Amino acid sequence: MTTVAAYAAPAAKAPLERTTIERRAVGPHDVLIDIKYAGICHSDIHQVNEGWGESIFPMVPGHEIAGVVSEVGSQVTKFKVGDRVGVGCMVDSCRECEYCLRGEEQFCVEGNIPTYNGIGRDGQATYGGYSEKVVVDEAFVVRIPDSLPLDVAAPLLCAGITTYSPLKHWNAGPGKKVAVVGLGGLGHMAVKLAHAMGAEVTVLSQSLRKKDDGLRLGADHYYATSDPKTFEELAGTFDLIVSTVSAPMDFGALLSLLKVDGALVNVGVPEEPVSLNLFSVIGGRKSLAGSMIGGIAETQEMLDFCAEHAIGAEIELIRADQINEAYDRVLASDVRYRFVIDTSTI
Amino acid sequence: MTTVAAYAAPAAKAPLERTTIERRAVGPHDVLIDIKYAGICHSDIHQVNEGWGESIFPMVPGHEIAGVVSEVGSQVTKFKVGDRVGVGCMVDSCRECEYCLRGEEQFCVEGNIPTYNGIGRDGQATYGGYSEKVVVDEAFVVRIPDSLPLDVAAPLLCAGITTYSPLKHWNAGPGKKVAVVGLGGLGHMAVKLAHAMGAEVTVLSQSLRKKDDGLRLGADHYYATSDPKTFEELAGTFDLIVSTVSAPMDFGALLSLLKVDGALVNVGVPEEPVSLNLFSVIGGRKSLAGSMIGGIAETQEMLDFCAEHAIGAEIELIRADQINEAYDRVLASDVRYRFVIDTSTI
Repeated sequence: MTTVAAYAAPAAKAPLERTTIERRAVGPHDVLIDIKYAGICHSDIHQVNEGWGESIFPMVPGHEIAGVVSEVGSQVTKFKVGDRVGVGCMVDSCRECEYCLRGEEQFCVEGNIPTYNGIGRDGQATYGGYSEKVVVDEAFVVRIPDSLPLDVAAPLLCAGITTYSPLKHWNAGPGKKVAVVGLGGLGHMAVKLAHAMGAEVTVLSQSLRKKDDGLRLGADHYYATSDPKTFEELAGTFDLIVSTVSAPMDFGALLSLLKVDGALVNVGVPEEPVSLNLFSVIGGRKSLAGSMIGGIAETQEMLDFCAEHAIGAEIELIRADQINEAYDRVLASDVRYRFVIDTSTI
Repeated sequence: MTTVAAYAAPAAKAPLERTTIERRAVGPHDVLIDIKYAGICHSDIHQVNEGWGESIFPMVPGHEIAGVVSEVGSQVTKFKVGDRVGVGCMVDSCRECEYCLRGEEQFCVEGNIPTYNGIGRDGQATYGGYSEKVVVDEAFVVRIPDSLPLDVAAPLLCAGITTYSPLKHWNAGPGKKVAVVGLGGLGHMAVKLAHAMGAEVTVLSQSLRKKDDGLRLGADHYYATSDPKTFEELAGTFDLIVSTVSAPMDFGALLSLLKVDGALVNVGVPEEPVSLNLFSVIGGRKSLAGSMIGGIAETQEMLDFCAEHAIGAEIELIRADQINEAYDRVLASDVRYRFVIDTSTI
């Protein structure tokens, strides 16, 4: 066991504060990671606030972890001390079900073990990346290519894979028209990735406030969803819409922008149920779908893709004592485009 | 112009009554069809009752038409007098858009022209199959194979194609587990077709009242959705669920029965919007989708498939003066499984 400093929420909706936590001893298959950077994901806030259901407290959030291996277990084969590595949203799974066996551990039938706000195989609560160090089974650790700076790589571990996976699954690429709803932490990654995949990319944002950014990040077009003309002009346009927002949306209006056989894929999760007239999907054989992070192999593939295309997140680096303020700014959509904690300040 | 007898609803929600309508003169590309049988589809009732929006009155419903060609236009090449033919939900489309060109006229960007409750190219209201004769462009007429009796073939023109198309599109077949929600006019066809395609078929019905029928029609399993244990036992089971009901449903519960990447495809349309928690689709990369009839070529393919597998609808043949009573019984789910009007009784 190792005692390490961390930032934790002591109770639901409480501000995060500095504390210490115990990390397990490094087992045969484990690596000890010196965390360098941890991204702040909107889902951290959902979970601190119990917006998605009951949480475990104290909670150390953080599932966008970039760091350096400082110790390896006796059986570890993938990594050595000094390797640049990342950890995303999960740290274990059953490894035996059909989904685990095909590398889609996020869909483990027993449920994957989340990086924080979960219970590990040892029966202890898992604690995330807002901390100095973490011990993770090497099977759930990925390599960060040398050309990617660790700070801009951290958000790839959630925001990157969460958008990369549906773009790949629904075949974003040359000749495809892809819309990204919301230009936030997830959305700005979706724009960069879809552009790099060769798709024609349109941002659908509430306003045109971030239009210049959107075009700079790789969007070909930028429309405001607050303008009803957007829905007239773009009716029946897109093969794929990736919605990254967790605010309530008019899904019927979004679905009207799809071509026949198009899919509206949600990676943001509104806390309230959405209302849908089924004519919206029947008329054009459309799908309202969802996607959740990605498997470990696909996460590595995404990191390699990002290195190849020189893609990192757009980040605002903060000190640990700015976390609570950063949470308020995320809720106010006041971040371009991801807060990343410099964990040396914890 | 030809004056023919028909049954029409004079106004929204009014009982249907005998009347006469005019059919256009047979144009160069038209065929005149002596209608022998017309199925009663739940959507006839939705439209008479304006449950889906404003309708055109008087309305002669009926888009499950089986009959015999009695006259052909000068340029007609596909049909000759005496041919056994069918007409389904549409009688024309733009024929020029990408969807029409690829044989998916149901998705015509200008909107297909429905068999009734629509406006034809001549600016006149279209009238459906509850009548003695109909004039239709040969491009929207299909051939009913000799081995299929016309009475049990009539419902194939809507109930058959509406279920065949999504089963094909979502790859129902050997090794696939398919659930059919609702064992009514559409549902019983879905069971027969999915079984003939080689899928393992489960019926999900409100109760076990029709279980013997379901198994006889080709289902391998039969469960009651009113029993909460059904949802425990079948969690994560199906590749595809085809929902044929138009009553409000718990879509979250149905989606929980899908495997990862599974699709819940709606062919029944509730009149009210449905409520959905997006976690239901995100957790297993699932889709809530819809499907609407099928193209003309696919309708012919479906009829040929039905002939090959000796599949017709299970019908209750009625006289025209029983239509209103039949409507009441459809609304009470008291039909096994499709009313078909003997149009010689009009």
